[in-house]
Order: sequence, then structure tokens, then C-alpha cells
Amino acid sequence: MADDAVELIPAERMLACIEGVLVALGVPAADAAVVAEALVEADLTGVDSHGIHLLTMYVERLRGGQIRPVTDITVIDDSGATVWLDAHLGLGQVAARRATEVLVDRATDHGVATVAVREATHLGALGVHTRRVAEQGLVCLCVQNGPTVVPPHGGVTPLFSTNPLSYAVPTGRHPTIVYDIATTAVAGNKILLAQRRGDPTIPEGWANDEKGRPTTDTRAASVWSLQWFGGHKGYGLGLFVEILAGVLAGSSFGRTEHTDSDVHGRGRVAKGFTFVALDPDRFVGRAELRDRVDALIDDIVGSDPAEGVERIVVPGMFEAERRAARLVDGVPLPTPLVDDLDGVAAALGAPTLRPEET
Amino acid sequence: MADDAVELIPAERMLACIEGVLVALGVPAADAAVVAEALVEADLTGVDSHGIHLLTMYVERLRGGQIRPVTDITVIDDSGATVWLDAHLGLGQVAARRATEVLVDRATDHGVATVAVREATHLGALGVHTRRVAEQGLVCLCVQNGPTVVPPHGGVTPLFSTNPLSYAVPTGRHPTIVYDIATTAVAGNKILLAQRRGDPTIPEGWANDEKGRPTTDTRAASVWSLQWFGGHKGYGLGLFVEILAGVLAGSSFGRTEHTDSDVHGRGRVAKGFTFVALDPDRFVGRAELRDRVDALIDDIVGSDPAEGVERIVVPGMFEAERRAARLVDGVPLPTPLVDDLDGVAAALGAPTLRPEET
Repeated sequence: MADDAVELIPAERMLACIEGVLVALGVPAADAAVVAEALVEADLTGVDSHGIHLLTMYVERLRGGQIRPVTDITVIDDSGATVWLDAHLGLGQVAARRATEVLVDRATDHGVATVAVREATHLGALGVHTRRVAEQGLVCLCVQNGPTVVPPHGGVTPLFSTNPLSYAVPTGRHPTIVYDIATTAVAGNKILLAQRRGDPTIPEGWANDEKGRPTTDTRAASVWSLQWFGGHKGYGLGLFVEILAGVLAGSSFGRTEHTDSDVHGRGRVAKGFTFVALDPDRFVGRAELRDRVDALIDDIVGSDPAEGVERIVVPGMFEAERRAARLVDGVPLPTPLVDDLDGVAAALGAPTLRPEET
Repeated sequence: MADDAVELIPAERMLACIEGVLVALGVPAADAAVVAEALVEADLTGVDSHGIHLLTMYVERLRGGQIRPVTDITVIDDSGATVWLDAHLGLGQVAARRATEVLVDRATDHGVATVAVREATHLGALGVHTRRVAEQGLVCLCVQNGPTVVPPHGGVTPLFSTNPLSYAVPTGRHPTIVYDIATTAVAGNKILLAQRRGDPTIPEGWANDEKGRPTTDTRAASVWSLQWFGGHKGYGLGLFVEILAGVLAGSSFGRTEHTDSDVHGRGRVAKGFTFVALDPDRFVGRAELRDRVDALIDDIVGSDPAEGVERIVVPGMFEAERRAARLVDGVPLPTPLVDDLDGVAAALGAPTLRPEET
């Protein structure tokens, strides 16, 4: 079987496998279901980088004690429209689920709300969480920081994470708008993949060499010297993410650790994140917002494409189409990944991805 | 005198000139002072594109009735943490001043607040307004939409404005962080300037030709086909701006007009804008936020620069240095601009920029 072989795995089996593995490692069943849903949603929408392949990392970190299996969230401050939580190094997706539940309540009560969370761990794809909020009628923004792997624009010392930013907007006839990006041009694993494949060059704008000089030479490109998307403009956004998600939330940021964790800097597992939600009912109205966003999307997708462009889309459109297809066909997972995960699952007595032979 | 000659004009004379001109056209003195301060602050910080040169456009629009001299702001909805205002085509800076005053009050009361404004006109530099809020201890975000001059990513039909986004963050020892960008790669006037100068090429990533094909040929570049900064990622941010500032605020957006104005589409003068502010006191604390942001800036500006890079900065740092210098030396204005403005001022009996000869 070729290295790039894939197998189509039904979402239900993926959910069962992830839940079983996490429960076997001491995660409460309800929390395991939340993490499983978040990972599988990422895979369904094609955000494979944030899907089930992360499970092996979570298993390692749970076993190593860097992630705590029971997510014990405490309230540091609750002022109504603002809530400040401490996730105490519990599971990031569980903290995000709790944060968005509170967020939706408070934004509905006050018209706008902010929930900031310190000391969470890996969140997965932010778009999974912002989409859930938008599907309840609210406009939602989320930012998250993390380990020190990216230098400031013009520098070579890693101080930031890839600092993702996501927003989601309710729609009517069209799929929910979901935007979910790293503020760096690409994630580091795209460079690693190009190096592993032996690609001679990477596109301009992805990375610098170790001296901070822009490069398209795959071997010279440093995963510790990613470029920000769009240069200084992307850097400025990444800095905003660091401040909202790290500093404001009282979590670690830049080279400063505010953590109970003993892994720091490049190895930092603690992440801060911050959600903001707006209730359109205090402005143009929920139903009217959906209608007007639909009209805007109609204008966009119906407008004239540039030469050579097939379709003009809005963020979340491709992902919704992929999700519909993968719910029917299954999620294509690389065979080596299925092998790995099934090894982990079997050893823990959890359901495997491939049907067990009887 | 060469065409590129500049004259150093003291900020006080610029303020007096702008105020005098606006008052002569029926703008109340207090409002004229607000507009003057906003324009001069842009010039002081080096954001010349949003400075005093805009006065001739404002004069035209006030005379033509597209901007109303008396800014009569009405409250559509007031829910405490959210306020929705209608600026009825009054002066954008005056509407922004009112919006930020309300914003600071409400964010202080509730921890987070949003003020959305429909039917404003030209706001000038958003960073002037977000900086003012940050200087009062709050984290502030502002977005604004406008005329249909930029196509969606992959398209050729202009549906968006250059959709600026600004944030500002309080600091302690360092200058306030102020980020203020167009979500397009550049403003259209940079292309026009290159065409006027006869530059053979423009940088990659600025603009497309009229068929939507990326180009570096200055003559082929279309000001109606600007590129988004960082491609699809910048486009997604521009779309978010259109939704928050246009749709949510009940203002015009895309090809849809919701306006009392009779100038539409490319000529649209009506702009929607939305501010969000957060009070750090509901999270890590105002004093602590300033200290931690200072520590982050120290890490950034003290980190190792890439080869060939002189300084690593954060947004707003160059601008603060320029402001300090220009407050002492005066603001360098091109002689033809001073001639134009002094002609306008003299005809209206307003103070001129150059001292009057006696």
C-alpha cells in the first residue's frame, strides 16, 4: 500500500474511538465527547491539521501530565457581560465549550459579552467554536495564543505562536460564515511537510531562514522563523491576538510565563483564549442580519470572477460543502494515521477506527 | 519652487485654519474643533493620507450637501452595554467622538461595550479614535465600511471599500499601541500616485488589472481592482469589517443601499462603523495590563533583528516618535496643498496656514 493511501472512516467511528481513548485516560465521558466532536468537526470540514491526528499528541500530554484529564474550570471574575475563567491546564476544547455556553447566555442578556480563559491547553480549530456560537444567532470572534515559535516582523527571536483568529457570522440560506486563520502565512507543519517531500522550493511569503531573511529555499526555511501573513499587517494582528488572548486573560504571553505548568516557551502547552460575541438584536436584528448577510453573499458569489477563477466564495463555504460530502462518504484519513490511532485505541481497549475483525 | 517642495506648518495654525473653514460652512464651533483635531492628529503621526488634505473634499461635500454641517446624532437603541446610533450623514469625526465617549462610559460600566453607527460620513484615520479610547485605559477595536471600490478575492466587481480596521492597547512606559490598516494591500491613491509619477512598476501584491489578473505593471493596474492584504486572509477580514460596520450597524453594505443619501455605490459617502471596547479591570487589571504589555514590548524591541533590519517595533511606535518631532518642528505640507488650502481659507475669511502678510 502506498504511503499516501487513505481510508474513508465514518464520523461515528472516529467519535467512538476518540471518546474511548480519552475515557480510558481518565477524561470524564461528557468531556471526552466534547473533544471528540471538536476534532471530528475539524476533519469533516477539511481542517485536517486540527482533526483526529491530534489525538496522539493529547494522549502523550495526558500521560505526561501536561494536560489534566479532569477540566476543573474556576471563575476568577464574573461581571455579567464579562467572565474570566481559569481552565487550570484542563482540555482546551472542554474549556472552549464552557466558555461559549457562558458567552451565548451573556451576549443574549447584555447584547455583547466577552469570556477570557487563562491556562487552557490545545483548543483545536477555533472555527468549530465560533461556528457553534453563530449557529445560535450571534456574531462571534475568538483569538488564542500559545508557545513561542514565531518571531516579531523583522526579528529572529520566537516570541509568539501562530496566533489564530476566527470569526463566525449567522446566515439564512447560505452556510454560516466561518473564518479561521493563523496570523502567520502558514503553519510550521507545511514547511516540515515540504522538507519531508523534498520539494526544492516553498512559495514566497511563507518563511525566513534562520537569519530572518525571506527565503523560498525549502531547506533554508526555518520553522522557527515563519512569516506573518501580509507582512507587518499580519504581525500587527498577531500582536493583538497575543494581547487579547495572552495578556488580558492573565495567561502566559511572549517570554513571560504565568502558569502552573512546568513546560515553557517553545514547549509551552498553556494557551490563553478570548471570545467576544454580539447579539444582532441590539442592532439591525437577528432575522434582518441573516437576510442582509445572505444578500451580501449573493452579491459576492454572483459577481464576475477574475480570468482563470472558477468560483468566488466566502469563508466557510468550501468547508460546509466538504462537511456534507464527508458525512456521507466518510473522512479520508491516511492509512499510517489509522494504523497509529488503532494501535493506541486497541492498547487502551477503546473502539478502533477500522471495524474489528471478528 | 519645485513641485515637491514642502513647508513646515505649526499644528496650531492647521487647527485654526480647519476650524475657521468648517465654521464658515455652517459647522458648529465645537464640532469643527473635533474634526480639526482628528485631521491634525493624523498629520502629526505621519498618516498624511488622512490629514488636512482631506479638508478640500469635506468642503466640496459640505457645499454639495452630501455631508450635513450639523451632525444630528440620534439613538436607535440603547441597551447599556450596546448602543446603536444614527449619524444622519453628519461629520464622521463628530460621530466617532460621540461614539467613543459613549463607548468609554459603557465599557467602564459593563466591562465590554459596543457602539455601532449607521450613516456617518468620512471618519478620517480610525487610529485617532482608538488611541483616544486606549489612553483612557481600555482596549479598543474599530472597523468601518464605505463605497464599493474593491472586488472580493478572485473577482472583478467592486463590492467593498478598503475596509479599515484599527485597534489600540494601553501601555505604561511605551507609546500606546495603535494599529490602523486598510484590509486591502494599499489604498487606491498609491496606485494613482505611481501612475502620476510614471513609475514603470508597482510591488507585487498591490493590485490586479481590469480582468482581475495580478499585475506589477503600473499602467495596467486598476484602482478598482485592489488586492486584499495577504490574499484570501485579508479578504476574509475585509468581509468581517463589511458585516460589523455595514450590515450590523444597519448602514449601506456591498451593493445594498440603506441610506438617505442620493450618492450610491462607488460614490457612496455614507459609512457604517462599529467600536468595541474592553475594560482590563474585569480581567487582569488596568495597571497590570499596562505593565504586562510593556514587558511584551520590551521583549519585542529588545529581540534580535533579522539581517538588514535596523529596528523591531510595535504598531504606533514610529507614529508616536513622528508626532513628538512634528509638534516641535511643524508638519511638512506640500506647497501646492498649502496654496490650495490657503485659497479656500482666504475666500471663506478663515485663518490661513501661512502667516498673512501685513
